[in-house]
Amino acid sequence: MAAVIDIDDPADPRLDDFRDLKSADRRPDLPGRKGLVIAEGVIVVRRMLDSPFAPTALLGTSSRWQELGDDLAELAVPYFRTTAEVMAEVVGFHLNRGVLAVARRPAPRMVDEVIGRARTVAVLEGVNDHENIGAMFRNAAGLGAEAILFGDKCADPLYRRAVRVSMGHVLRVPFAQLPTWPSGLDILRDNDFRIIALTPDASAPNLATVMGVEKVALLLGAEGPGLTEAALVAADVRARIPMSAGTDSLNVATAAAMAFYERVRLS
Amino acid sequence: MAAVIDIDDPADPRLDDFRDLKSADRRPDLPGRKGLVIAEGVIVVRRMLDSPFAPTALLGTSSRWQELGDDLAELAVPYFRTTAEVMAEVVGFHLNRGVLAVARRPAPRMVDEVIGRARTVAVLEGVNDHENIGAMFRNAAGLGAEAILFGDKCADPLYRRAVRVSMGHVLRVPFAQLPTWPSGLDILRDNDFRIIALTPDASAPNLATVMGVEKVALLLGAEGPGLTEAALVAADVRARIPMSAGTDSLNVATAAAMAFYERVRLS
Repeated sequence: MAAVIDIDDPADPRLDDFRDLKSADRRPDLPGRKGLVIAEGVIVVRRMLDSPFAPTALLGTSSRWQELGDDLAELAVPYFRTTAEVMAEVVGFHLNRGVLAVARRPAPRMVDEVIGRARTVAVLEGVNDHENIGAMFRNAAGLGAEAILFGDKCADPLYRRAVRVSMGHVLRVPFAQLPTWPSGLDILRDNDFRIIALTPDASAPNLATVMGVEKVALLLGAEGPGLTEAALVAADVRARIPMSAGTDSLNVATAAAMAFYERVRLS
Repeated sequence: MAAVIDIDDPADPRLDDFRDLKSADRRPDLPGRKGLVIAEGVIVVRRMLDSPFAPTALLGTSSRWQELGDDLAELAVPYFRTTAEVMAEVVGFHLNRGVLAVARRPAPRMVDEVIGRARTVAVLEGVNDHENIGAMFRNAAGLGAEAILFGDKCADPLYRRAVRVSMGHVLRVPFAQLPTWPSGLDILRDNDFRIIALTPDASAPNLATVMGVEKVALLLGAEGPGLTEAALVAADVRARIPMSAGTDSLNVATAAAMAFYERVRLS
């Protein structure tokens, strides 16, 4: 059982891993500094407990302690119990989710490890918005895509907001960074993935017509600029989602969800 | 051409329709008070100009005036030109999109008018989050759903944030409020729509298997609670999106996008 430690001093150094969550240069989830991983709220904390990210401590209110209950039974780390007011002073704002867990950032995973048994993966280029990254992982988890790979210029998936928007699924859907871009895509081709670049180009074939193979890797670029020419050239095939004229491209996480859905729609 | 009027006093009463955009009780887009409709940024302002929502004035910087250029050629309303600093004082925060347009809220449209020639419509119950409402309209516009109907307890689609997240598509995709709920669904049945309730229930048939009719109305409830029992009973059929075990339901706008996509995937 997690050991409960009651805290009433917001300056208590045992809470330092939870301090100043919104500080641009001191926040504990900043890669290159502490680089911790923060889970917020009962649902996401539960997902962390059920993931390879082992928390080193929790900070929360008495009612959240009760709500988590049995989920903490196996845990050998402290639960720092305090009031919402003390929590607000520590983290730097009022956090209405009432509980946080913190974990060390694990060593990065290798591409061949995360694609090992995957049939559907997404590969992102230039997706630098944490909410879009989070939504992408949530959609992957919900619709059975097994891994996410990062190409060039993407946002950190372990940033607090990405963890939250993903509903904790960044802690469970495996991801890895391609070591080179776009040449690093070769490892997918070597593993029999068809590399499909999503494009708004109306002359590209329909997404639904190019997905009927055993393994697919979906290349997705940011809203607006889309994929670079280098990435488009590196793909095996281009495909489009049928879109109405006079509209913008879909949000990138929504576009990914269409493609993931196409893989499972009759399952 | 819109008449340019240079303004340097943030207290100028001609700017009152743009004032205090984030004020809970004074914001100009509050239904029941002024109930105006606010478009932010070049893309959304352009959509407003190309919609039935006729702006009565614009407020923006000199550079946005130049960027809009020809789009203002036909417009017979003032463009209040000022600095980003004066704009910030007027609206109450720094608005980096640099231009706003304001329109009167039009009379509500009737259900039979908005479903007249539609083949795919969404009907929402309990969707009370403005971002989800906005994303729903964006996805409808992108994927060819022709109307959105509001059942019970939904957020105002003309709230500023909903307009922004929709990329302005709440100004173009027709919507209407059902006068009663859920009995008001009868008008859809009378117009030959199949009423399909989306549910996470694993025993429900697959969404892809129930959509092959001329007209479909998709019933969607909020994430978490989902549709009420009364709404489920009022539908013709229930259907599920195939989801992985151990995940949450998808975001409601994403779930709607799957269903819209199912209608156009081979188009």
